[in-house]
Amino acid sequence: MSTDTTMDTAAPYYEDPRIRHFLDNIHSLIIDEALVRGSSRETKVVEFAHPHELHEKLNLSIGDSPESDEKLLDAVRDVIRYSVKTSHPRFFNQLYSGLDPYSLAGSWVTEALNTNMHTFEVAPAFIVLEKYMIQMLCGIIGYKDGNGLFGPGGSFLNFLAINLARYHSNPDVKWSGLFGGKRMMLYASEEAHYSITKGAVFLGFGMDSVVRVKTDKNGRMCPKDLEEKIEADKQAAAWGGGALLSAKYKHLMTGVERSDSVAWNFHKMSGVPLQCSAFLVQEKDILEKCNKVNAEYLFQPDKFYDVSYDIGDKTVQCGRKADVLKLWFMWKANGNKVLGERVDDAWRKAKYLADKLCKTDRFRLVIPEFQCTNVCFWYIPPCLQGKEETPEWWSKVGKVAPLIKEGMIKEGSMMIGYQPLSNKGYVNFFRIIIENPWCSYADLDFVMEEIDRLGKNLEF
Amino acid sequence: MSTDTTMDTAAPYYEDPRIRHFLDNIHSLIIDEALVRGSSRETKVVEFAHPHELHEKLNLSIGDSPESDEKLLDAVRDVIRYSVKTSHPRFFNQLYSGLDPYSLAGSWVTEALNTNMHTFEVAPAFIVLEKYMIQMLCGIIGYKDGNGLFGPGGSFLNFLAINLARYHSNPDVKWSGLFGGKRMMLYASEEAHYSITKGAVFLGFGMDSVVRVKTDKNGRMCPKDLEEKIEADKQAAAWGGGALLSAKYKHLMTGVERSDSVAWNFHKMSGVPLQCSAFLVQEKDILEKCNKVNAEYLFQPDKFYDVSYDIGDKTVQCGRKADVLKLWFMWKANGNKVLGERVDDAWRKAKYLADKLCKTDRFRLVIPEFQCTNVCFWYIPPCLQGKEETPEWWSKVGKVAPLIKEGMIKEGSMMIGYQPLSNKGYVNFFRIIIENPWCSYADLDFVMEEIDRLGKNLEF
Repeated sequence: MSTDTTMDTAAPYYEDPRIRHFLDNIHSLIIDEALVRGSSRETKVVEFAHPHELHEKLNLSIGDSPESDEKLLDAVRDVIRYSVKTSHPRFFNQLYSGLDPYSLAGSWVTEALNTNMHTFEVAPAFIVLEKYMIQMLCGIIGYKDGNGLFGPGGSFLNFLAINLARYHSNPDVKWSGLFGGKRMMLYASEEAHYSITKGAVFLGFGMDSVVRVKTDKNGRMCPKDLEEKIEADKQAAAWGGGALLSAKYKHLMTGVERSDSVAWNFHKMSGVPLQCSAFLVQEKDILEKCNKVNAEYLFQPDKFYDVSYDIGDKTVQCGRKADVLKLWFMWKANGNKVLGERVDDAWRKAKYLADKLCKTDRFRLVIPEFQCTNVCFWYIPPCLQGKEETPEWWSKVGKVAPLIKEGMIKEGSMMIGYQPLSNKGYVNFFRIIIENPWCSYADLDFVMEEIDRLGKNLEF
Repeated sequence: MSTDTTMDTAAPYYEDPRIRHFLDNIHSLIIDEALVRGSSRETKVVEFAHPHELHEKLNLSIGDSPESDEKLLDAVRDVIRYSVKTSHPRFFNQLYSGLDPYSLAGSWVTEALNTNMHTFEVAPAFIVLEKYMIQMLCGIIGYKDGNGLFGPGGSFLNFLAINLARYHSNPDVKWSGLFGGKRMMLYASEEAHYSITKGAVFLGFGMDSVVRVKTDKNGRMCPKDLEEKIEADKQAAAWGGGALLSAKYKHLMTGVERSDSVAWNFHKMSGVPLQCSAFLVQEKDILEKCNKVNAEYLFQPDKFYDVSYDIGDKTVQCGRKADVLKLWFMWKANGNKVLGERVDDAWRKAKYLADKLCKTDRFRLVIPEFQCTNVCFWYIPPCLQGKEETPEWWSKVGKVAPLIKEGMIKEGSMMIGYQPLSNKGYVNFFRIIIENPWCSYADLDFVMEEIDRLGKNLEF
């Protein structure tokens, strides 16, 4: 038979010296531009350009023939240039900051091994790693014989949790669905993450099935309003897990060992690249009972090894990316002690900022009592100071954050998120997340000075 | 105020020469061990160890204090050693193989920039890139004014598609849920991917709502059996998209432009690292209409740039990993022409193998007519040849693949998936996926020789 063998590359492709040279050049570019320059205080956090400008500035086009390695390096250089430097010490936007070098190294290895997590057969080392880490995390939470897996983000894990709660309350739903059944309600704090609403729609409950439970002035659920609660309190928020690593602050998570499940986002607070979200359950078998649908073509029982390591049926995904190595490697590199210290350090810095904000008239904390590493505040420009705080006055305060944010983005000096507060007529406030261990006290001083510089001449 | 400034690292962390040295060493280790050695025919596809052995062989433990860089490099070396070499030319397990060096480079850049895809503000370059690629992919499919996004895997995209179909048939479900409503049915081929069943459970339809439509002997849906079909045929399978890139084979996807949505897994057939799954819809606004729940804290309307680039509400995720750069970079590097040629090359090689399998008594194709790059076959060992093909005989044939698979894994010579065929009493057959451009004709000859070597002395 005649076969076209132009593509019949007998030589292993990664031995090609040109490929190796190119990958070495990409590595140097990443180190120099994305990491060293990208995390330097001399560099802008963002070099802003509008969408239509970026469509022109980036060399996006794809031709019929190959692009030269040189032009490709230039194209990547531009992508780095116009990307937000999320590892910059002055990047405070929601909801992560700081990139641990060991975790980054783990992610590069993961990409090169390109492993799918459905069976032990194709992912032996990664599945053993995941098992090790899940057991360790269950131990930290206080689940004696728990189980879990990593998944693509906190919202997705919240969906898994809602699905488990539904299965737990009525296993028949797995077969019959929700049709004709009695309405099931989801009870969530009125400040709860919007993934609960998205999940309610996605999983067939509908938005009308979400009951919002009132919160107190510190944003905590009111127990009185929650007497009829059933499900929502069974999940801890994906953001607070870090406190468990701190000897000093883990008491804030007391009781978490009585929960049914926990979603823990390691890409927040721990400097692990997106996404690294662990879903942990107290009841060992519920994940498989709830999610298994018997796909024999992947999970054959007639294998010669311990098939309990074929964990694909623990989730609703089929292919699943290996998110565990970057977490394990970061943790192993730094040790338990440093991670706990990082959490303590973030709290100390947040308290430093909150205390300093309290001492001036130009800043006001949204929640006066200091609570966590999430500091929320308004900037009150001189033109609004000493005035009666009428609804009109608050409406003007709400316009301040977007204007200052525009200023900081256009100058690229720093990035801080803002958002409206629903129980205050949707008045925007700044929300700064302190979690990057490489953010200094001087950076926090800079935040206040820069907001004041950008905002003091605003007129309403 | 007194602050502990031991962690107040004024120097940018990636400037630390020790960090740079470590990342350079990791890069060399990846190139040498995971890529060059990992894709060499001299190397085993897998160095098999049982789970309990791996728990000992891998240096898993995490201490209180930091681990030395030297020991960390050794730990990673072990992870690479015991991982399956998915970029090896003799890795044929489902459902991907071959790792494009440019795409790998793109994934490393993505990890270093650590970008979240919810708003243009935090992901300017990546959102423009995604928009460019989605428009290009919609063009290839034939959607004139389509839309889309990348998401974590084909199963998840199938869930999105089912959710859209539900919204399309009855938008009220977004608010009311499925309670009290008339049962909705999901019509899927009896050979359809198990994610349809998982999705039916997850989205609240229940497994009983999945109707399996009969297939013909080639695994295609029987139109006669499908007269009552409503939804299931609205989705193309996530695996076949590659054919659209080939001038020669794109006719096989004729009619795809009349579909409502397409899920396209670029980690299959294109050598892009996991996960890279594009979800494309014909109706421009339906993603947002269906999935939006108004999270003002992320998607503030009072921004100074074109907020239509804040695309977070197009999906049910909140944080979303940037999966686009690795695809774009691979495509830009190779050009349209090479990608089309890769597809043609895979078909040629699959036909070469199928033709060769037909010519011997020891192999038999499951589907006699050659159909695509997915070649399914049985190995009939000498002891079973020339016998009457009774149910007992078939049951023995079904035991062959697991035994040969055990042999190839233990020797690490290659990896090919097998699975049971439901309409043949669950008899296991081999399923080889040809898509790695660096797999040669000689590798396919090796596959047949190696199966024969491992299987010819089996006795039943």
